[in-house]
Parts: sequence; C-alpha cells; structure tokens
Amino acid sequence: MSLRAAWVRGRSGVVTQLQYARQGIITGEMAFVAEREGLAPELIRDELAAGRLVIPANINHPELHPAAIGQAVTCKINANIGTSALSSGMDEELEKLRICLRYGADAVMDLSTGGEIIAIREAIVRHAPIPVGTVPIYEAMDGVDDVIALTADDLLAVIEGQAKQGVDFMTIHCGVLREFLPLVAPRLTKIVSRGGALMAQWMRHHDRQNPLYDRFDDILEICRRYDVTLSLGDGLRPGCLHDASDAAQFAELKVLGELTRRAWARDVQVMIEGPGHVPMDQIRQNVALQQEFCHGAPFYVLGPLVTDIAPGYDHITAAIGGALAALYGVAMICYVTPKEHLGLPNAEDVRQGIIATRIAAHAADLARGKSRERDDAMARARYAFDWEAQFALALDPDRARAYRAETLGLDCRTEYCSMCGPKFCSMRLSKALEGDGVTG
Amino acid sequence: MSLRAAWVRGRSGVVTQLQYARQGIITGEMAFVAEREGLAPELIRDELAAGRLVIPANINHPELHPAAIGQAVTCKINANIGTSALSSGMDEELEKLRICLRYGADAVMDLSTGGEIIAIREAIVRHAPIPVGTVPIYEAMDGVDDVIALTADDLLAVIEGQAKQGVDFMTIHCGVLREFLPLVAPRLTKIVSRGGALMAQWMRHHDRQNPLYDRFDDILEICRRYDVTLSLGDGLRPGCLHDASDAAQFAELKVLGELTRRAWARDVQVMIEGPGHVPMDQIRQNVALQQEFCHGAPFYVLGPLVTDIAPGYDHITAAIGGALAALYGVAMICYVTPKEHLGLPNAEDVRQGIIATRIAAHAADLARGKSRERDDAMARARYAFDWEAQFALALDPDRARAYRAETLGLDCRTEYCSMCGPKFCSMRLSKALEGDGVTG
Repeated sequence: MSLRAAWVRGRSGVVTQLQYARQGIITGEMAFVAEREGLAPELIRDELAAGRLVIPANINHPELHPAAIGQAVTCKINANIGTSALSSGMDEELEKLRICLRYGADAVMDLSTGGEIIAIREAIVRHAPIPVGTVPIYEAMDGVDDVIALTADDLLAVIEGQAKQGVDFMTIHCGVLREFLPLVAPRLTKIVSRGGALMAQWMRHHDRQNPLYDRFDDILEICRRYDVTLSLGDGLRPGCLHDASDAAQFAELKVLGELTRRAWARDVQVMIEGPGHVPMDQIRQNVALQQEFCHGAPFYVLGPLVTDIAPGYDHITAAIGGALAALYGVAMICYVTPKEHLGLPNAEDVRQGIIATRIAAHAADLARGKSRERDDAMARARYAFDWEAQFALALDPDRARAYRAETLGLDCRTEYCSMCGPKFCSMRLSKALEGDGVTG
Repeated sequence: MSLRAAWVRGRSGVVTQLQYARQGIITGEMAFVAEREGLAPELIRDELAAGRLVIPANINHPELHPAAIGQAVTCKINANIGTSALSSGMDEELEKLRICLRYGADAVMDLSTGGEIIAIREAIVRHAPIPVGTVPIYEAMDGVDDVIALTADDLLAVIEGQAKQGVDFMTIHCGVLREFLPLVAPRLTKIVSRGGALMAQWMRHHDRQNPLYDRFDDILEICRRYDVTLSLGDGLRPGCLHDASDAAQFAELKVLGELTRRAWARDVQVMIEGPGHVPMDQIRQNVALQQEFCHGAPFYVLGPLVTDIAPGYDHITAAIGGALAALYGVAMICYVTPKEHLGLPNAEDVRQGIIATRIAAHAADLARGKSRERDDAMARARYAFDWEAQFALALDPDRARAYRAETLGLDCRTEYCSMCGPKFCSMRLSKALEGDGVTG
C-alpha cells in the first residue's frame, strides 16, 4: 500500500483538506508537505484554512506525494503534457511524464485532446507522484464535432468521471460570462484560451449563460466529494501585450473572486489561473488585483510572456515574466516550452520548458528570502573546481555535464575550463592570492 | 568610402563625441543614431554632453554604423566572442561575428586570449558595422607567462595599439585597488573577473598600486586621441549570489565614479561595467547605487545571473536578471550563453545567447514605454494565421520556421497548429464569434 493510501483510508463524507484544516486537524498530507517545505505543520494548516494555500490531493490518487501551493511555501511549477488530434500517443506522453519527474515539475496537467484520452490519463495518474490536473472540456469535446452539441450534464459527467479517476485539480472556465464577450472587441487576438473560446461559442449559439457558471454548485458538489482542487480558468486572459490588463480580463477575474467564496463555503480548495501575455511593468498590478479580487487564493499563472516577438524562445519570455510574477506573490507558474505558438512540444521541449520555469520559480524564492543553500554549495563547488559536485547541484546535471564534455572531454580533474584556459582562470589566480594570505 | 569615413575626415586634435556634444555640435554619428532611435538629434547631443549616453566610435573604425548606449535610447546588447588558448580560430570567430550581426547584437567584444590575437581583431573590426570592444589585458598577457612580468608601459602600449586599430570601447580594470583585496576574504568565489584577478596578482607581487589606476591620465590621453569609450571594468564583481552587493563590490564602484569624473574632464566617454551574480531583490539597488556613485554614466551589466544552480541554462538566468536591470535603467546588457561556467561558446551558443539577451532588453524597453509596434504586428499576424509574417517579425525567424515545420511541415496555409489542432484552435473559434458580430 502506498504512503498516502493509509492516510486516505477511512475518510468519508466531506474529505477535503480545507475542511480538515478548518476543523484544526493536521492531515497526513499537511504533515508531509510541512516536512518537505521545512515549515511547521500548524502553519500549513492555518494557511490552508485561510484559503491562501492548497494541497491538490484527490482521495482517489493514493500514488500522490502531496505538494503545497501558496505564498507561504516555495513557488511551484506545472508542466503541461498531453496529445493533440494530430500527434502523440501513450508512449510519448509517459515519456514526457518521466521527463517531468526527472527535471522537477511539481505538478503536471494532462491536456490530451486526441487519441485514447481516458486511458492516457489513467496511465498518467497511476504513474504520477505529483498532482495531476486536467481541463475537462477537452475530454468532453472528444465525443462531438462542435461544442454546441454538449449539454451541461455532459460537462458534469466528464468532471465526475475524471474526479473518480483521481485527478487532483481541474481547470474550469466558469468565469467567462456571456455579458463579457463584447468586451473582447477591442482586442487584437480576442479569446486565446481554448476553454474560454469553446464556452463563448456555446453561449453564442444557445444564447444562454455559461453552463459551468450556472451549474457551479453541482461542480462544487463533485469537487467536495473527491477533494478536487478547483483551478478557476482565465478564459479571457490576454493573448498579446496589447490586450493585457483590459476590461474583459478583470471582469472575469472579479467573477472568479465571487466563485472563490462560494467554493470555500463548500470546503472546496481553489486556486486562480492568470495570464498569459503581460508587459513587465503590469505584472505587479496583475498579482495585486488577483490577490484583492480573489481574497488571497493562490495565483497560478501561465508565463506571463513579456514580449510577443520571440516564437521559438517563449520559454525564456515566460521565465522573465514568471520570475517577476513569483517575486510579487504568484504561487505556481505553468511552464511554457520553446514550441509555444508553433506546435506540440516534444520530450526535449518539455525538458527545456521545465528547467526555464524552475529557474524562474527558484530565482523568485531566493529573492523572497527562501533558502540559498544549494546556490552557495554551487559557489563552493566552483571555487573548489569540484566538477562532479557542480553537476550534482545543477538543475539539469545531464546538460551541464554534456556541455563541459563538449569542449574539454569527460576528464573533470582540470582546474580550469576551455572558456578561460589555465592562464586566465580567475579562480586559479584567486587561490594563489588566498594562499599568500592576501584575500583571506 | 564608407558612410562614416566622410564624417571623420578632417577631424583632428580632440575628436571625441563628448567634446563635440559639449560644444553644441551635432556630429554625423549623433544624427545617425538619432535617426535610428527615432529621437531628436538635440536630445542625443544633450544626453551625450551630460555623460548619460555614449556613442562608442573610434575615429579609426570607419566601417561603423554608430549606436548609442544610454537610458534615453533603447537598451542595447553586447555579445562576447573570441578565441581561448584551447580552442577556436579566425574562421570560427568570423562565423560568430556573422551570427552576432544576423541575430541582432548591438555591440561585440573580442575577448580573444589565444591564437593570432591581433590579426583576429583586425578582421573583426574591419567586418563589424557595430561597435567593437576589447579587454586589452588579454592581449598583453599573450607575450608573457605571468602577469607580474608586465610593466605599466606594456599595458599602455597594448591599449594604444588597439586604439589605433579602431577598437571602439575598452574594458580597463582600474578600480581594483590594492587596499580592496582584503575585502574579498569573506567571499565564496573571491575574484571572478579575469582582469580583476590578474591585476590583483600583479599588485600582490609588486606590492604596488594598480598600474591602470596610477597611469589613468595616460590612458585617458590615448582614449581622447582616438575617441575610445572607456568601459570601466568591475574587477571585483560578485561571482555568486552569496558575494553580491558586498563591500568589495561597492568600494570599487565608488572609485569608478571618481574615474568617471576624471574621464569626463578630459572629454573621454565612459560607461560602467556591473555584475555579475545578483539576486532579483538586489538588482534595483545595484542600479540605483551605480547611477548615484557614477553620476548617471551608462551602466553595462553582465547578466546579472539570478541563481547559481543552472549551468547549461545561464542565458536564461541572465535574461531574467538582465530584463530587471534594464527595467531599472541599465543601458546595455552583455549576453551570457548556455556554455557559461562550462566552456567556450560555439556558434549555436552565440545565437542562443544573443536571442535570450535581446528578449530581456526588448521586454524592458516595452515596460519603459518604448515602441510596441512589432509586438502588435505579431499579434495581428497570429490572429490572421499569417505564418510568413510571424516568421518575419520573430527575433529568430529561422528557428520559428523550423519549429513549426517540425510538426506541421512547411505548408503554412493551415489555419491552426499541431498544438491545438483545428477543433481546439481558439483563434479559429474567435473568428467565428467575430463573424457573428458577438465580439466586434
């Protein structure tokens, strides 16, 4: 039996971490994340109870090693994997999951829209010791040619099916209200969220309100039963700098704030999804408004990308935005890969996206006063010319080793690298000074 | 005859852009950069006269298309190329220069320390329409086994030789004073600037002050004669987060401020080099102190890297730091390649370093209210599914095209990409809504 199975066994009725926290109970999950973060379990419990922290942990996901998402803990990163109609299958997705685990994704979203969606998700959940998220509308679309063919009951059935399967968090685009659609008219790229665009299409055709909004209480009932954490989707997020921080974006964000209170009233954990494409100077305001409108619920952003002109390098545009967002209080960053805007990422893209996002999250953690021990250990290893220690401390040991081998071979005993050569190696020179007692 | 040769012809005596600006004269160089930046020539002249902007433009570099570096203009990026004792020759370096020009480096430093140093530099200067910088101590070291064998006159002779050759800016480590050496004792990585470590070694052996400081007036005389812009080197920059913003770093920075005033008194243009490795929360203070201590002279930073644990990806750690630094007022960012800390960059590394740094500089320009036209054009091209326009607007058109081709082939007529496929393409859905008049 897995570690977590013992904690979950015997739970019935309301089973959410939020409810336990409010009752003053420290669950196995809370104790586990407290240990990982080096924090007191009471702090985790209290942050959870206040809604400022979530532990996405479906009771049907016993394979999970729980992780906490909130400002009180280290910034987390999510990696998106999944098939599309045009490419990728089970083996490729499990390989991507393996890469996510190897390079340190804290959570993974299975965004499959093609192939054996349910079977692929089952495999991912069963192999994932990290929280698994989904966007249920993608599976719902699998059976139909057009979103307008779906009923609210269809959507709820998919949500319930995924909850039963053990999905830990779900993106639901329930804040895209029909009255907000005219607000996107001035935009250059209109609606860029797939879920948002689908719900807009549905509302236009049926001339009715967003069914995910209308049936929000029913959705909460499902989430409550399995402890699915709601990730309230930003269906109206900006898709370019021009569209950032506009009326449509903030109208939806206010609704997400109302829905947050309704979820909390039902003991359902909530985080809020955010943009997207935002210039550097607007990131602080975006985080501040989310915290205000959504009462301190954890903010989970996609990027944000700080320029639109770098296709092929959007893992870097997103790392800049993500680092700033995390510095200002974002709790989780969704990775962006080099293939963003261009195609479906392959395994190497997943790796690059994860490392770029890890860098952003870690840089912000450091700036927020969280542990610098690993960085200091790296500095010591560099000064000691201890190449093996440098590789071991690197976010991507394989790449660091390969790059060094490319120019100097695999012999790591040399006390310099090919960038400077021995005569110009500042560290070798510094050691000579130190030996002379000049610099301590 | 080249464009600039006509401007330079007939100049004699004091020939620096700074002196002309102070006399109220708008040179051909000033008019050229004003046109490029879309600013009034008078503004360029006045910023130059105030020392807040430089135009590195040696009178012996007629091939130059001048560029301005300062807060009033767009943020510039520098790429380092050059041989080491262990690798790379003339052909590789010219190939790197070609890549610098293709991917948009605004300046290039030839940091060669091995091979035919003078011949390689000659080839680079003659082929570079962008400003060329050097670190003269590297060439000086070529003739000797140890820095202690060099005299002050040796160093001056190299500086003069390079000035004659047409080098536009030079890094001189004249702020590393002997009395500062004990200040590096608490550091984990001591002195990481190669020039700084060499001068420290020289001072320790000879038990005398830094000869570049002692002979600063003679250096100014050379710079003044050829209009070489001084890039006052930060020989005591921190080499890891632990060492950032320490007494050694700021003691040297204060000296650089004094030297700035002395250079200005002789009509010599000056910029100040900066770190290095700095946590995100200390970047603003670093820029503010440099501006205060150095009287508004342009700040030219290397990175800064915001974490130490990402060897293999330091172009990304530097892009985060560089974007923040530029947002706070840095005028030029030196690129960092993925090979930093591991080996000498090859052509592909140079390309990656340039694009990452361009992203950082551009993101900061956008946040400082500079033109967003290209970003908006990209957004329009995306919404129009105009893939050719997207490639043309991209910082790296070749990579964007290759990535798209990897998943969808070279046919760019499809109105979706393999990430979403046609059914989930939010832009396709948005167009349908727009056609219906729902979203304008």
